[in-house]
Amino acid sequence: MTATVMSAMIRPLVEARLPDWVEPHWFASKQEALEVAPKAEIGWFDLNDPVAMSDIVRAATQLKWLNSIYAGLDFLPLDVLAGRGVTVTNGAGINALTIAEYVVMGMLVHAKGYADVVRARDRREWLTESPGKKELAGTKALLLGYGAIGKLIEPRLRAFDVEVTLVRRSGGDKALGPDEWRDELGRFDWIILAVPATDETEGMIGERELAAMKADAVIVNIARGSVIDQAALTRALETKAIGGAFLDVTTPEPLPADDPLWGLSNTEISMHLSGRAQDKMFVRSAERFLANLEAYAKGERVEPQFDPARGY
Amino acid sequence: MTATVMSAMIRPLVEARLPDWVEPHWFASKQEALEVAPKAEIGWFDLNDPVAMSDIVRAATQLKWLNSIYAGLDFLPLDVLAGRGVTVTNGAGINALTIAEYVVMGMLVHAKGYADVVRARDRREWLTESPGKKELAGTKALLLGYGAIGKLIEPRLRAFDVEVTLVRRSGGDKALGPDEWRDELGRFDWIILAVPATDETEGMIGERELAAMKADAVIVNIARGSVIDQAALTRALETKAIGGAFLDVTTPEPLPADDPLWGLSNTEISMHLSGRAQDKMFVRSAERFLANLEAYAKGERVEPQFDPARGY
Repeated sequence: MTATVMSAMIRPLVEARLPDWVEPHWFASKQEALEVAPKAEIGWFDLNDPVAMSDIVRAATQLKWLNSIYAGLDFLPLDVLAGRGVTVTNGAGINALTIAEYVVMGMLVHAKGYADVVRARDRREWLTESPGKKELAGTKALLLGYGAIGKLIEPRLRAFDVEVTLVRRSGGDKALGPDEWRDELGRFDWIILAVPATDETEGMIGERELAAMKADAVIVNIARGSVIDQAALTRALETKAIGGAFLDVTTPEPLPADDPLWGLSNTEISMHLSGRAQDKMFVRSAERFLANLEAYAKGERVEPQFDPARGY
Repeated sequence: MTATVMSAMIRPLVEARLPDWVEPHWFASKQEALEVAPKAEIGWFDLNDPVAMSDIVRAATQLKWLNSIYAGLDFLPLDVLAGRGVTVTNGAGINALTIAEYVVMGMLVHAKGYADVVRARDRREWLTESPGKKELAGTKALLLGYGAIGKLIEPRLRAFDVEVTLVRRSGGDKALGPDEWRDELGRFDWIILAVPATDETEGMIGERELAAMKADAVIVNIARGSVIDQAALTRALETKAIGGAFLDVTTPEPLPADDPLWGLSNTEISMHLSGRAQDKMFVRSAERFLANLEAYAKGERVEPQFDPARGY
């Protein structure tokens, strides 16, 4: 029997289908998790509390495999996981579809000024001019990050006749290399950030990058707040040095009520909801975990793996 | 010289490029148009006033060719135009791209509950759950109307993995015939109305059709308010017999401030802005008119033609 410690949240979705070699331990609170964590070989420690999850990971000294519904796990003690050689499977791709849909929605909402249509509608006012008059067709997007999310954004934008340029290590056709995209920033109407949160991507959009963008360029960030120098972004939006931003993520989260970003009419803030705008997240994650249990029993590779040493 | 009466609105876009056989007469008001209309062989009578445009058409007794930026011309005295054998070119397709983009935006906005995200954002409130949790992927859409707009909606939705069923006279693969779609209404998550406004489409969605829809079906109307029995629609939305509506068009327009549709949280109202959410409408229309003038001079067919006898 293999001690497997799991959040009670996912119990209804997996309990009846666990293999007989699994010895399940369910927890409903941080305290319960900390008590049982030391015996866990397999752990699914998700809680709506990054600090608690980190403490549980530290307490799980026998852990061999950590699973999570989240894609970005940079909030965990990755050095501990790497040092102990824990295999980590994450939620990469589970939210990808709905996030990709959210990105296109954000671009359309910005292009058509739809937030102002909602506001007028709430005033029962019949507008006679569209607050936004952009078409997606014929525009150019730079897509930074080509993981599960980026791969789903690309064909959706192409169907809208958006010219999508990727950034890939290898460069290549319709793609720029990691050292090339900065010099080309002035060509794009949309800068879409779908990169993982790593040391390399931290602050990748700063004053210099913002200054290189077109005056009507719009940034779409569904990665992490930290990939943008937010003070520099706020200044660029305030002074209309760029056209706008659709921010699903910010620094910090929640964004404090007095943050100047809230006051900017050219900025949409969607509160890290993009991945939650679906009802299949838990079902998808449970299915994947059950399949991985079978693979684990056979000594096969569990998927998709998150590398704690690289951070993605 | 051919007397050509045109709105001053489009003067800056066409004046310098008119062929020398055109004798231009510009008008800036209904009164000016009515004075010069009787001598017009060619007329471009667009004004933001359907009644005025109808009066000008009636006054243009020598008219051979009427051009308009609008796609739907059902507000004109079509019997007069048909009786006089006037060739009519309309704006079909000029707004199609931006309307198709608007349709997908409307579906995404509904799926993700984005209007409530805008409202929370304006309160500086950080939501922790998405107000909408639908994905477009895997849903089924019935697309009524397969003109310029419908043809652009289809590939965009397919890129989102929406299963699109067309309604076409001929029926066929992935399509239903005009007598078939009513019996299949219960299969669809989205009912998209992109039909022309004709006697045949007037009130095509009434009590019976609404009752046949799924409880979470969403209607998207970018055709005309009159294609839906609006009283029946309002009841269906109030009682949540259907999931919601994204209404770019209503009866009447503007929708009166006391209309119950404004009060419904499952209903988006976008004030007939879908076609105006672009800045290329006039340029596209001017280019097309100039090309048609060349064709007209050679006795060739002007395009695209609107048939006053059929109404589309």
